[in-house]
Amino acid sequence: MQLASLSSDDLTALHSQLTRDYADLKARALQLNLTRGKPSPEQLDLSSDLLTVLDADDYRAADGTDCRNYGGLAGLPELRAIFSELLGIDAAQLLAGGNSSLTMMYNTIDFALRHGVDGEHQPWSAGPVKFLCPTPGYDRHFSMCQSLGIELVPVALGDDGPDMDEVRRLVADDPSIKGMWAVPAYSNPTGSVYPEPVARELVSMPTAAPDFRIFWDNAYGLHHLTDSPAPVVDILGLAEAAGNPSRVFIFASTSKITFAGAGVAFWASSPANVDWFTGHLAMQSIGPDKINQLRHAKFFRNSDGVRAHMRAHRELIEPKFRIVVDMLADRLGGYDFAAWTTPRGGYFVSLDVQPGTADTVVKLAGDAGIAMTPAGAAFPYGVDPKNSNIRIAPTYPSTEDVRAAIDGLCTCALLAATAALLNSAD
Amino acid sequence: MQLASLSSDDLTALHSQLTRDYADLKARALQLNLTRGKPSPEQLDLSSDLLTVLDADDYRAADGTDCRNYGGLAGLPELRAIFSELLGIDAAQLLAGGNSSLTMMYNTIDFALRHGVDGEHQPWSAGPVKFLCPTPGYDRHFSMCQSLGIELVPVALGDDGPDMDEVRRLVADDPSIKGMWAVPAYSNPTGSVYPEPVARELVSMPTAAPDFRIFWDNAYGLHHLTDSPAPVVDILGLAEAAGNPSRVFIFASTSKITFAGAGVAFWASSPANVDWFTGHLAMQSIGPDKINQLRHAKFFRNSDGVRAHMRAHRELIEPKFRIVVDMLADRLGGYDFAAWTTPRGGYFVSLDVQPGTADTVVKLAGDAGIAMTPAGAAFPYGVDPKNSNIRIAPTYPSTEDVRAAIDGLCTCALLAATAALLNSAD
Repeated sequence: MQLASLSSDDLTALHSQLTRDYADLKARALQLNLTRGKPSPEQLDLSSDLLTVLDADDYRAADGTDCRNYGGLAGLPELRAIFSELLGIDAAQLLAGGNSSLTMMYNTIDFALRHGVDGEHQPWSAGPVKFLCPTPGYDRHFSMCQSLGIELVPVALGDDGPDMDEVRRLVADDPSIKGMWAVPAYSNPTGSVYPEPVARELVSMPTAAPDFRIFWDNAYGLHHLTDSPAPVVDILGLAEAAGNPSRVFIFASTSKITFAGAGVAFWASSPANVDWFTGHLAMQSIGPDKINQLRHAKFFRNSDGVRAHMRAHRELIEPKFRIVVDMLADRLGGYDFAAWTTPRGGYFVSLDVQPGTADTVVKLAGDAGIAMTPAGAAFPYGVDPKNSNIRIAPTYPSTEDVRAAIDGLCTCALLAATAALLNSAD
Repeated sequence: MQLASLSSDDLTALHSQLTRDYADLKARALQLNLTRGKPSPEQLDLSSDLLTVLDADDYRAADGTDCRNYGGLAGLPELRAIFSELLGIDAAQLLAGGNSSLTMMYNTIDFALRHGVDGEHQPWSAGPVKFLCPTPGYDRHFSMCQSLGIELVPVALGDDGPDMDEVRRLVADDPSIKGMWAVPAYSNPTGSVYPEPVARELVSMPTAAPDFRIFWDNAYGLHHLTDSPAPVVDILGLAEAAGNPSRVFIFASTSKITFAGAGVAFWASSPANVDWFTGHLAMQSIGPDKINQLRHAKFFRNSDGVRAHMRAHRELIEPKFRIVVDMLADRLGGYDFAAWTTPRGGYFVSLDVQPGTADTVVKLAGDAGIAMTPAGAAFPYGVDPKNSNIRIAPTYPSTEDVRAAIDGLCTCALLAATAALLNSAD
């Protein structure tokens, strides 16, 4: 039964029923929040031992360094070694930093704007700067660029990466396109995975800007939800093989592995870029918190420790994702007007409701006590041209709350869709 | 016996003796390092409990916030409350950040360059930018400015603050002077203390730049070495009273209180500036490491806990400072060619050797295994016009090593001075 093919009478009857359902929903006075990709308390409990893992005399790195004192801008070698294995990156090219990969992204763009990306080219800020933004994407990537005066150029993101015809055309034509965002595994919010051929094209395609850089934000690379995980793409190796060894900056963190806000961020690139980055970073930092890095290294012990830890995360959050997609199928599937992702990993489900109604749906949900990410948030400048996309972040609430929230959201989506169809039929 | 008034024969004899002493010194093959202001292992041990102070279920802030999760850009309220008392700043105007006040200084300058310091004025980067640098000063302040394209303008720093006639004249004349460094208590390296009248002048003096700002780096404000500590100057209150409430940014940290590199940094200013700073900071950070802040709050308990902790630091480092000044007096005092500070707090002794010889003294010391901060480091662009100043950082080495290092340094200083006087007599 397609919603669009209902008779006017049937549509009116359905809308009336949904209006009553929505009134019931509001009467329940829910207080639910699906706005941000935050780990749940139960997920955080998985890392409880991190709080107590160090003894009072447990402050030496494997090489004897007293981690309580200054120094070591590149981060703790043993922690870099563990994540080197997991991320498939030479430890010498992998830096362990502070508590935020977002900060390291800002640092990288800041340095490029002020100093240029290498000794050869001008500072990016010498001219206009644009970034390609696979869309829907991560709102903080976009707002960061905006705050730095960078123009956002959307390109469509499909299940297996961005529209590469469009990407190739744009970067070949426009020398002011200096950067491109990419969340290669389980992207925020659509769960897209970049296959190796797409990665290979990204690092080998000709670019009008000789100082073009890809910001490879591997935030969810270890966050699998199925038994067939997205393989790690050796993007630095591919870039080197393509003759563009310094084209890619990689970012990762343990924010959604251990403690969000008290984890460790990672940065990786070519050896030349490592020198470039640490050279500028040294002007503002003597080194990261090595004690917290030591805590992480001792807590995980090795890469298998991280893998086991990620399986425990999956056990906690997979049921929530299942509730979301089952509920969406159950409540919306029959009407054939909405579409959603079934992510193989990451932190989000991306829902497309009746075009033109996403903002109404989010407002209806909010008024019923179900806080959703603002409509359009996943788009450059916060504008979803179809006004259709809604990001669902199901990890933080309990399974019961996820169920109640998505059930309510479906009512709002159906109510807005029937109202829109009735309006357009007038 | 002034060195300068020795007869040529006496000077030659002394020089020969010192040449033999220096050969003996080299033969000892010392390996001593007085380059950086680092806490000693014994000082770090004072904070050992910080490693174990949290239990596995110890992650809630006083207001119930789960410190393991995202959020809280201003930092943990209870830790801000403790340092609010110590620094004499309203907790609402005091932010607790990451592990580095240097990073917060960079952030502040970065935001001012890109966005201007308020809604009214242009970004600093719209024109030339100069900073007044009380000199000798902190090399990292200077190198940070240089890396950001800011011109360094030295002004002489005396025991009780900068040459205010010069400061007043410069800021009144030159609208490109946008900033000024100040280390108000026990400055690096001279131990200068800014008295309240100087502070009052700094916040009330007319400036050609309407968007002039003072970078009040209170890095050593709690690091007393005597029973008459430098009082905390309420610089924000003075600035408000003078009608320039937003002129001052304050920085502090626990880097030399708990763990250097794993401590907590602080930032303070007017309410308007707090909004300005956090607004821009939100583009690159979701919040600081609240778990480490919780650890600090629980470890200290209250401001008296910090005061007691600082007394324990003093017990460990005061003997080292005494060795330095006693040794300098003993070995150099009789010759009346050198001068040095007797700091009432902070981390350094500033030594002025025979003009024209500081670089030689540092080289001689280095060749004898005594690593000193490079000559000129405390001056803008690394250039000490008199080539006379040497920074001594005595906290890290053991008392025995401090004694051996300063004894050796004195030999080098005397050797270079006698050589210079013999040369000038030629």
